[in-house]
Amino acid sequence: MTAEGEFDLIARLAPFLTGSGEGLVIGAGDDAAVIRVGDRDVCLAVDVLVDGVHFRRDLSSFADVGWKAVAVNCSDIAAMGATPTAAVVGLCRPDDLPAADVEALYAGMDEACRRYGLRLVGGDTVRAAALALSVTVLGDVDPDRAVRRSGARPGDRIVVVGTLGAAAAALAQAVRGAEPDRDLLAAHRRPEALVEAGGALAAAGATAMIDVSDGFGADLAHICDASGVGATVDADALPAAAGVAGAASALGRDPLDFVVAGGDDYALVATLPAGVADTTAAAVGGVVVGEITAGSGPVLVAADGTTTDLTGRGWDHYRAGDRT
Amino acid sequence: MTAEGEFDLIARLAPFLTGSGEGLVIGAGDDAAVIRVGDRDVCLAVDVLVDGVHFRRDLSSFADVGWKAVAVNCSDIAAMGATPTAAVVGLCRPDDLPAADVEALYAGMDEACRRYGLRLVGGDTVRAAALALSVTVLGDVDPDRAVRRSGARPGDRIVVVGTLGAAAAALAQAVRGAEPDRDLLAAHRRPEALVEAGGALAAAGATAMIDVSDGFGADLAHICDASGVGATVDADALPAAAGVAGAASALGRDPLDFVVAGGDDYALVATLPAGVADTTAAAVGGVVVGEITAGSGPVLVAADGTTTDLTGRGWDHYRAGDRT
Repeated sequence: MTAEGEFDLIARLAPFLTGSGEGLVIGAGDDAAVIRVGDRDVCLAVDVLVDGVHFRRDLSSFADVGWKAVAVNCSDIAAMGATPTAAVVGLCRPDDLPAADVEALYAGMDEACRRYGLRLVGGDTVRAAALALSVTVLGDVDPDRAVRRSGARPGDRIVVVGTLGAAAAALAQAVRGAEPDRDLLAAHRRPEALVEAGGALAAAGATAMIDVSDGFGADLAHICDASGVGATVDADALPAAAGVAGAASALGRDPLDFVVAGGDDYALVATLPAGVADTTAAAVGGVVVGEITAGSGPVLVAADGTTTDLTGRGWDHYRAGDRT
Repeated sequence: MTAEGEFDLIARLAPFLTGSGEGLVIGAGDDAAVIRVGDRDVCLAVDVLVDGVHFRRDLSSFADVGWKAVAVNCSDIAAMGATPTAAVVGLCRPDDLPAADVEALYAGMDEACRRYGLRLVGGDTVRAAALALSVTVLGDVDPDRAVRRSGARPGDRIVVVGTLGAAAAALAQAVRGAEPDRDLLAAHRRPEALVEAGGALAAAGATAMIDVSDGFGADLAHICDASGVGATVDADALPAAAGVAGAASALGRDPLDFVVAGGDDYALVATLPAGVADTTAAAVGGVVVGEITAGSGPVLVAADGTTTDLTGRGWDHYRAGDRT
């Protein structure tokens, strides 16, 4: 384990990633980068899944892993308000991984590609000590219409689409040696990318958007940091996944550990002008959970009025030991 | 080691990759896939470099590895006649790899991006047991102008730009425990992508093109397979890198082992109509090495007239044990 967290490393690498100029619409630091190609904007997202770090073979089939490698990238594309179009995969294959398992990985990627309307157009499979999939997904969006993290303004409402906490609760059950609840585990194995909702939120005028991978608190903090704003969130309004409360109770944990800090949810968090937030949330099956403020960073407000700083409750997989 | 070679696996995965239809210009199986984006064509190439498989830390610095991860993808883009525009990286980072080494990897990628005029726009760094870099590079090309492997016609001349054998000879020296020749090792550590030559060959009417990664024989065989043609190659005309003959002699090896079957060269092999081949070769610093025939697969013709089937002399890194 390194002494530094992921965000420190990102800061060290920023000088190599923050180029700007002709053709670059949005650089590194958002859910996806955006480049101008002719008369279109192209989003690029990359996510790597590693055996034993991001998945466990006793919890996920190879087809599940393939699905997830595509879906989590489609979620990044959705968070830009874009439409996934094409994917390529770099696959690190251990010598002892049978070809049938590689086929299952590809079959799962293919399933997700069909689900989200994109194509797997290429790949490089190489020999390696550990199984890992690095998937890059491209997305298409109208020029200058990609939704950044940086546009949230005080008074905007915070809308969440999807549910929170299921994947983290399932993993906590597994780490404890329990049989994970089937529905909770499904969220870990086969997350859904909310591509249609992302497009609808963008069309409705979302000022900022992110998908929940690190955890709701950490990801809302990313919006706050990028936008230079604060946020208040109504704890009771957060859309906890069904079964999370029960799982938390059985584990002796606070359900908010999973809902706010769990991560791996692939819900969408968007900020919208107050005038359109309620109708938009209803139209996309989401809920309004709070409001952007002139402060700094997100604060969770419980029913009794007590507040909790959400910054730092996020889940940093360089520090956390229980991701899998 | 699996019982199958890389090409067998590719065949098993083909059903998941050979989609066609709106928006897909060239699917998997060429140096890069090509999709239509608005009024442009976008090429996508992905290559993975794995510690101990594709590089050795005693032969390459981390900056070298970063350079190479970008350059080999730019070489794929060059082989389509396209221009690299953007890259993303999925980085598998072992816990014991210091942040300074990750920075060096990024610095090397940055150097190559500056050299070839593209931008590193995003990345995902994850914890993993083994160091690996999966780099995806996008390229830009005029619509329907990307050069495939499948357009070679009998009578076309075969042009090689760049030199052959250096990287493989350096590795053979290292495997034998010798100090690799500095210039040979440089070809392994910092290959050059022939982006300008690729563009010039495309503009001159190249009917097919590929970059030499598997080995000249195997890669020319890919053109022959895709085009349904044969080829005769003049062994004496092949542009062996300086020092390869001497290294081969000292190792007791046939220089053609490195020149024809070594791989990792990132030379370009293009086929051109006979009428333009000589002038084009001269203009891009290349040489004419042979001719496309109505046969099947490439044949090497020695000065004394003896012929060798080049098919199968290629270097399949699932079978070969001495890549690093």
